[in-house]
Amino acid sequence: LRTGLPEAVYAPGKTPDQCAALVGELLAVDGGPVLLSRADADQAAAALAHHPGATVTGDRHRLLAWRPAPTRPGRTVVVSAGTADLPVADECAATLTALGLPPARLTDVGVAGVHRLLVDVDVLVEADAVVVVAGMEGALASVVGGLAPGPVVAVPTSVGYGAALEGVTALLAMLSSCASGVTVVGIDNGFGAACAVSRLLGPGAGDGG
Amino acid sequence: LRTGLPEAVYAPGKTPDQCAALVGELLAVDGGPVLLSRADADQAAAALAHHPGATVTGDRHRLLAWRPAPTRPGRTVVVSAGTADLPVADECAATLTALGLPPARLTDVGVAGVHRLLVDVDVLVEADAVVVVAGMEGALASVVGGLAPGPVVAVPTSVGYGAALEGVTALLAMLSSCASGVTVVGIDNGFGAACAVSRLLGPGAGDGG
Amino acid sequence: LRTGLPEAVYAPGKTPDQCAALVGELLAVDGGPVLLSRADADQAAAALAHHPGATVTGDRHRLLAWRPAPTRPGRTVVVSAGTADLPVADECAATLTALGLPPARLTDVGVAGVHRLLVDVDVLVEADAVVVVAGMEGALASVVGGLAPGPVVAVPTSVGYGAALEGVTALLAMLSSCASGVTVVGIDNGFGAACAVSRLLGPGAGDGG
Amino acid sequence: LRTGLPEAVYAPGKTPDQCAALVGELLAVDGGPVLLSRADADQAAAALAHHPGATVTGDRHRLLAWRPAPTRPGRTVVVSAGTADLPVADECAATLTALGLPPARLTDVGVAGVHRLLVDVDVLVEADAVVVVAGMEGALASVVGGLAPGPVVAVPTSVGYGAALEGVTALLAMLSSCASGVTVVGIDNGFGAACAVSRLLGPGAGDGG
Amino acid sequence: LRTGLPEAVYAPGKTPDQCAALVGELLAVDGGPVLLSRADADQAAAALAHHPGATVTGDRHRLLAWRPAPTRPGRTVVVSAGTADLPVADECAATLTALGLPPARLTDVGVAGVHRLLVDVDVLVEADAVVVVAGMEGALASVVGGLAPGPVVAVPTSVGYGAALEGVTALLAMLSSCASGVTVVGIDNGFGAACAVSRLLGPGAGDGG
Amino acid sequence: LRTGLPEAVYAPGKTPDQCAALVGELLAVDGGPVLLSRADADQAAAALAHHPGATVTGDRHRLLAWRPAPTRPGRTVVVSAGTADLPVADECAATLTALGLPPARLTDVGVAGVHRLLVDVDVLVEADAVVVVAGMEGALASVVGGLAPGPVVAVPTSVGYGAALEGVTALLAMLSSCASGVTVVGIDNGFGAACAVSRLLGPGAGDGG
Amino acid sequence: LRTGLPEAVYAPGKTPDQCAALVGELLAVDGGPVLLSRADADQAAAALAHHPGATVTGDRHRLLAWRPAPTRPGRTVVVSAGTADLPVADECAATLTALGLPPARLTDVGVAGVHRLLVDVDVLVEADAVVVVAGMEGALASVVGGLAPGPVVAVPTSVGYGAALEGVTALLAMLSSCASGVTVVGIDNGFGAACAVSRLLGPGAGDGG
Amino acid sequence: LRTGLPEAVYAPGKTPDQCAALVGELLAVDGGPVLLSRADADQAAAALAHHPGATVTGDRHRLLAWRPAPTRPGRTVVVSAGTADLPVADECAATLTALGLPPARLTDVGVAGVHRLLVDVDVLVEADAVVVVAGMEGALASVVGGLAPGPVVAVPTSVGYGAALEGVTALLAMLSSCASGVTVVGIDNGFGAACAVSRLLGPGAGDGG
Ligand SMILES: Nc1ncnc2c1ncn2[C@@H]1O[C@H](COP(=O)(O)O)[C@@H](O)[C@H]1O
Ligand SMILES: Nc1ncnc2c1ncn2[C@@H]1O[C@H](COP(=O)(O)O)[C@@H](O)[C@H]1O
Ligand SMILES: Nc1ncnc2c1ncn2[C@@H]1O[C@H](COP(=O)(O)O)[C@@H](O)[C@H]1O
Ligand SMILES: Nc1ncnc2c1ncn2[C@@H]1O[C@H](COP(=O)(O)O)[C@@H](O)[C@H]1O
Ligand SMILES: [Mg+2]
Ligand SMILES: [Mg+2]
Ligand SMILES: [Mg+2]
Ligand SMILES: [Mg+2]
Ligand SMILES: [Mg+2]
Ligand SMILES: [Mg+2]
Ligand SMILES: [Mg+2]
Ligand SMILES: [Mg+2]
Repeated sequence: LRTGLPEAVYAPGKTPDQCAALVGELLAVDGGPVLLSRADADQAAAALAHHPGATVTGDRHRLLAWRPAPTRPGRTVVVSAGTADLPVADECAATLTALGLPPARLTDVGVAGVHRLLVDVDVLVEADAVVVVAGMEGALASVVGGLAPGPVVAVPTSVGYGAALEGVTALLAMLSSCASGVTVVGIDNGFGAACAVSRLLGPGAGDGG
Repeated sequence: LRTGLPEAVYAPGKTPDQCAALVGELLAVDGGPVLLSRADADQAAAALAHHPGATVTGDRHRLLAWRPAPTRPGRTVVVSAGTADLPVADECAATLTALGLPPARLTDVGVAGVHRLLVDVDVLVEADAVVVVAGMEGALASVVGGLAPGPVVAVPTSVGYGAALEGVTALLAMLSSCASGVTVVGIDNGFGAACAVSRLLGPGAGDGG
Repeated sequence: LRTGLPEAVYAPGKTPDQCAALVGELLAVDGGPVLLSRADADQAAAALAHHPGATVTGDRHRLLAWRPAPTRPGRTVVVSAGTADLPVADECAATLTALGLPPARLTDVGVAGVHRLLVDVDVLVEADAVVVVAGMEGALASVVGGLAPGPVVAVPTSVGYGAALEGVTALLAMLSSCASGVTVVGIDNGFGAACAVSRLLGPGAGDGG
Repeated sequence: LRTGLPEAVYAPGKTPDQCAALVGELLAVDGGPVLLSRADADQAAAALAHHPGATVTGDRHRLLAWRPAPTRPGRTVVVSAGTADLPVADECAATLTALGLPPARLTDVGVAGVHRLLVDVDVLVEADAVVVVAGMEGALASVVGGLAPGPVVAVPTSVGYGAALEGVTALLAMLSSCASGVTVVGIDNGFGAACAVSRLLGPGAGDGG
Repeated sequence: LRTGLPEAVYAPGKTPDQCAALVGELLAVDGGPVLLSRADADQAAAALAHHPGATVTGDRHRLLAWRPAPTRPGRTVVVSAGTADLPVADECAATLTALGLPPARLTDVGVAGVHRLLVDVDVLVEADAVVVVAGMEGALASVVGGLAPGPVVAVPTSVGYGAALEGVTALLAMLSSCASGVTVVGIDNGFGAACAVSRLLGPGAGDGG
Repeated sequence: LRTGLPEAVYAPGKTPDQCAALVGELLAVDGGPVLLSRADADQAAAALAHHPGATVTGDRHRLLAWRPAPTRPGRTVVVSAGTADLPVADECAATLTALGLPPARLTDVGVAGVHRLLVDVDVLVEADAVVVVAGMEGALASVVGGLAPGPVVAVPTSVGYGAALEGVTALLAMLSSCASGVTVVGIDNGFGAACAVSRLLGPGAGDGG
Repeated sequence: LRTGLPEAVYAPGKTPDQCAALVGELLAVDGGPVLLSRADADQAAAALAHHPGATVTGDRHRLLAWRPAPTRPGRTVVVSAGTADLPVADECAATLTALGLPPARLTDVGVAGVHRLLVDVDVLVEADAVVVVAGMEGALASVVGGLAPGPVVAVPTSVGYGAALEGVTALLAMLSSCASGVTVVGIDNGFGAACAVSRLLGPGAGDGG
Repeated sequence: LRTGLPEAVYAPGKTPDQCAALVGELLAVDGGPVLLSRADADQAAAALAHHPGATVTGDRHRLLAWRPAPTRPGRTVVVSAGTADLPVADECAATLTALGLPPARLTDVGVAGVHRLLVDVDVLVEADAVVVVAGMEGALASVVGGLAPGPVVAVPTSVGYGAALEGVTALLAMLSSCASGVTVVGIDNGFGAACAVSRLLGPGAGDGG
């Protein structure tokens, strides 16, 4: 396992057979976790048929994981704003779990009801890394960034319509956050946020990285 | 006074003499407040020389007001995020004052320190109208919109650099707010927000509107 | 009923069962109106099967409303420009009705035929709140803003093609309106405009707000 | 005179001497009007010193015209929205005058006060060509397009701040106008609108075009 | 016939029955041409079933026309760049024909083969109005604008991929044309260009306009 | 010292006296580092006059630091692409130094000469955190992200002209990096990148955080 | 064969019969290669039925080629970043082959693993022309531009999601490349890049060009 | 001389002394041409004082060249549209000259007067490489691309106002050109276009490349 860089196949645009074959190549040469991300039902079925034993998470952003890493030290948290942000948050959480960093989850804590978030402020204060997943105006990143002293990685989502501009609004807002030191990954990139957390929490026990 | 529509001269691009003359025309025909907005030092001096007695507010967005309206019922609040948002917030507050609606002020309550805002939550809960002035990611509008049950008018400001895109980021974020029923005016348009509040609080005593 | 904030479920991206369940949760805990917005035929059928008695409005932006609020004082008006703007205008009107504020309607009054609008100028002058729904160039907001002295909330729609940029043109135009004090909500957000009106007209009789 | 295409020098980026020389070349070879547009004080002085007898119009968009065309038939009108739109409207009017088509003027007729425009509706109905100059939301083009049956050329201006996006908002709005058959030229391009009118009104008496 | 403003129904978003009914209303009250634009097969069939006798043009942008105007004086030309621009050019030509202004056609004359266009330069020089329809880089408008002395109306099309940005590139290019006095309508708006031509060529014989 | 959140005053838009006063307030109440960022010569002079002893770094993005933190464990590296990126890289390095994390520096290692970067690949492999500062196409972030296994924070700069779009191109490129787990801060925000590194390296010895 | 300009039919938007007919016209009049690009299965079948003997390449961007040119001197290389870039790279390679310039291929050499590219640096150094095909952040163009001394044509692809903005990010990055003298064609335009290479390598033997 | 990559210092943002020193470093180690680009008067003076003998070209985009390469075979042409495009065209021509490829020049050949360009079509047909420099709508690239069979490199310029969007319009238009195989460099990047030409014309006599 090279820290922070799981071996992963991105399914869109590949045939089910190509997905299965690429997963096979990765399983052949490496001892760490292997992922197939954003797989549709056919791609997932083909990969599982050839390579049984993967855990499968989610539906719209379906993630398959083989050979999950043993759990590493590090309290991780994935915070998400609304129901519609869950597919991205789930992709992030499943990736973290496969990397040995299963996260705590705070869901449905949009800033229009800031009290719901404050109830769980301890989770944020004690976390070794927090991922914030939010669409629309993306304000949750700023509020969490002000509450959590540790590293905060923000994932803008394409949730919302009209002026949400398919995630661009949340992206720009997170980059302009008044909470210093919040960093940002691409729109809907829950996978990338998990990789960033893995990079910063360092190699697990027995890791060569 | 037609409710919500003060007589106002927008100074940029006019000579000092034109400013003075236009103010004079408005003072000649109407019983309500007359404003000169965004005046530079020369424009303000010329207008005051010909038409003494105005109150003068601010510096970067200097506002002059003649014949202020008598105070109307209505608890108004102007909330602003950072120091750099003050010129816009001040323009809004001075316009409200001239319209008979002097506001309470909450300043320096950016969402990265949400506790500072919660201290004053009563002011928000009891307000008849709240104006939120914020730049950068504009998240303050969502948090205030979740705390205040009454009308909330958001003013995005051009504060910030880089990805703040001179106010476009805050504008889009406010329009995408997860707090329902927040409305928005143009970038840096503190004047317009005050007019919106005046419209919704209705005519003052003795008003023809 | 917290003024201006109806309990509402936004259907897109949820299964029919999830819609029904979420509506059920809201009906269980609260005495005010409950809405299911943007429901497709299956989502609406599932919600109605479990929770009969809702009024159903519209088709493209289908809204279901349970336990409508008793009619509150307040003359509201929804003005719309063209036939294609009707789904958004209807969503707004149905939300207002559920909130106890059934609006008068002015339809098909685009600014290219400004005389049609002037025929009904009295309705605008006497309104306690006006919602303007328009796509394409969104000019209707400026004309209405110049005729109506009270609060005007503008809803840009994604109606139009090419340079209408799916509502961005109308949005920018409304924010730049030369009619002072017009406020704006997000593209196609008829629901949000109704919430804004509910906020500014205040709690109904017997309301805790 | 090739109809619609006056001989013109665009001054920005040229030295005063270059301006004077280029004007000289045009005066040497052609019998029709010669223009120097957007000249600053030095450029204008140099051109006048070498080639006296030009009419000079405006200040921010200064236009010099030599050998104006004799007046042609054609009732032209230049309508403008606000004080700040005048430099563009004046450039258009001065170009039209040099081309033999001196326009009637309607100024300060923004759509927030639509009654002011309706007072002069006869001028619009009888015009052979109307130019509409407006910034901010550019709504004036739609209203005029609905009132005038003849050709309407719209000029968006860079007037306004924030969401007016330096004229892009007015440009997009005019292109999306609900008044069919309105055509548009570039931002602040009063000169181009005059050329368009000249093209459509055809050659003057004694014109070779 | 109010010059330049045919009675037209825009079909998208309407049911076949609504299309037929709206066409019926227009046929009931007016002596001039009635159009149904952008109709799909069902909409067209319904309208024809209730109101036989329309001419039908095109396929992707299908236009139906009832009661075409008698031919008016005025040599009109529709120039188009590529095969893919034809649906927009055809909509324009069919509208012109219904308005009594059947155009000459120049097709497949993109600027990468400028000699093909020069072969027909006489048609452009003698035209009373030229419509240029082009996508991609829209350069044809500039070349035609330099060859034709009369009015030139440019229609950007959404033809092209990638950097053509669905017509925005052609739109911006046409607005920035170095050929003075070219005017522009919205993306793909062949109908609007025909209306513009109708406005500028004035009323037909026996026209009230 | 709350980890990752130094006390900082952002100088632009403040008077020299305000800068000095705000620095004074922060020095009065807190034991950790105090920064004044983006100060011009006058602002820096005023702050130093009242509060001597600060280190001063840079010129275009001048940073003053009082009470620097003792050096913490953590090998940090700041990599920058070209000469013009140095002001942003220096602001980042100076902030890191004040926070107790003085970085190694790799400068002038743009990707067009990738061999220069490979010479120092060991520094990247062993780093506990890497900041990449690059303008123009921002490709350096992807190359470094592929070489360094630890956390990589990318700072797009506004360096470049034309299609570099004042940093937007580098920003988008870094967010779209094919190197997984690279995170991004706002354009030119060297300060924010240092805060992000401080968050992830955790509190220093004797730190309360 | 006019150098660099193969006779080609762009299939999208044409019926299968039109495709076959247009190919037939080109085969009738010209001795060089004839291409049908971006054909779907039906278009390809119709063209092949009428005109057998074409080579068929690819699937998503299917290219048919009749009468390929004899091989010309010139070592061409097509470098591509990821699997998803292959359809565009294949279209480019098939066009080059039809033009007599069959390329070497380097695939799967994204910059996050720069060592894979360095293995083949000799191929780049000795090439007479290199085409770089990359999506996402497009950084590959800069790295290749720094390694290859000859002409480099970059093709941005629409590969990626979110902030990749359907190819705009790669396009802007390639245009801003810090490697001097790299040129760029439109998004996904593998065909255009091949034409550019054909232009610069000059006419083949027996070519009239 | 590595073909296509002259040693060049980009002056903006550097002190005169830094410019002189960097030029000195390049003159010390390399036998080929050394350039200082975009130098202001002070930067140029300092560099010349320390390193006499440079040729100096232009004013707004001043270029200094030391040790020009001996003339290489290759007929190059720089075509430009308007007077305002000359600074960019001159930077390109001076760079080509320093690289041993002095170009023929065609100036003032905008597409609105396409006949002026056709007069010189032979120059285009016989060229080994053509650079097209044009702002506004950038249409010249398409027309030249259709006339010249060899390589065509297009340089969009920031010339024009309003909808020209500081060169973005010309850039997009050139990328969308209907003339196949035209390639594009960044806005105003005359230097880059010259480097591209140098790459494609290959090493001069005695060149190591
Ligand atoms: N600071 C301001 N921001 C936005 N609009 C303003 C401002 N001050 C005045 N206005 C409006 O500008 C118009 C006056 O413009 P003018 O006729 O150019 O003086 C009136 O409609 C005012 O309501
Ligand atoms: N193809 C078209 N493109 C643009 N506008 C059109 C088109 N067809 C009809 N219109 C305009 O659309 C309006 C009719 O819209 P509606 O009332 O929705 O049928 C009228 O103003 C017509 O002039
Ligand atoms: N150079 C900088 N770039 C970005 N943010 C900064 C910078 N310097 C200070 N800040 C932040 O700006 C805020 C201080 O703003 P102010 O209260 O206006 O001085 C704090 O949140 C700092 O963390
Ligand atoms: N006028 C110019 N336009 C674009 N790039 C240039 C220009 N002049 C020099 N360069 C490039 O800029 C780089 C030098 O930048 P610097 O190290 O900051 O002097 C080299 O890669 C040059 O090829
Ligand atoms: Mg959200
Ligand atoms: Mg703020
Ligand atoms: Mg509308
Ligand atoms: Mg205006
Ligand atoms: Mg075209
Ligand atoms: Mg760089
Ligand atoms: Mg790629
Ligand atoms: Mg040009």
